[in-house]
Amino acid sequence: MTDNIRILFGRHVRKLRQENGISQEELAFSSNLHRTYISDIERGVRNVSLDNIYKIALALDVSPKDLFDF
Amino acid sequence: MTDNIRILFGRHVRKLRQENGISQEELAFSSNLHRTYISDIERGVRNVSLDNIYKIALALDVSPKDLFDF
Repeated sequence: MTDNIRILFGRHVRKLRQENGISQEELAFSSNLHRTYISDIERGVRNVSLDNIYKIALALDVSPKDLFDF
Repeated sequence: MTDNIRILFGRHVRKLRQENGISQEELAFSSNLHRTYISDIERGVRNVSLDNIYKIALALDVSPKDLFDF
């Protein structure tokens, strides 16, 4: 079941990124994270923590809460 | 600024826990996390990750999204 939150979170990050019309590379650049890390998040294999949740939210111009709106 | 999300998250966990009328010990027990870890989260010193966010949400009977409603 904790796998599930990673998967739901990752899918939602991908959705928001695509809605923003930016690539994984672009999200990686603006969030100051590695592209493979972004890819892993979107595939639901990363146990993302608060600091990086915040960086991704900022880069996608949403609130951290919006990243959990799934 | 990333310190800030830990602090905001921690305060909100504390608020929701107190609204639930349970102690840190009780939250620790029901989330299967250590009491000192719960205390650290509430003090904003932990970089909590998805799996534990999920456990805490479940123990507080809220959605992960509600934990970010600050």
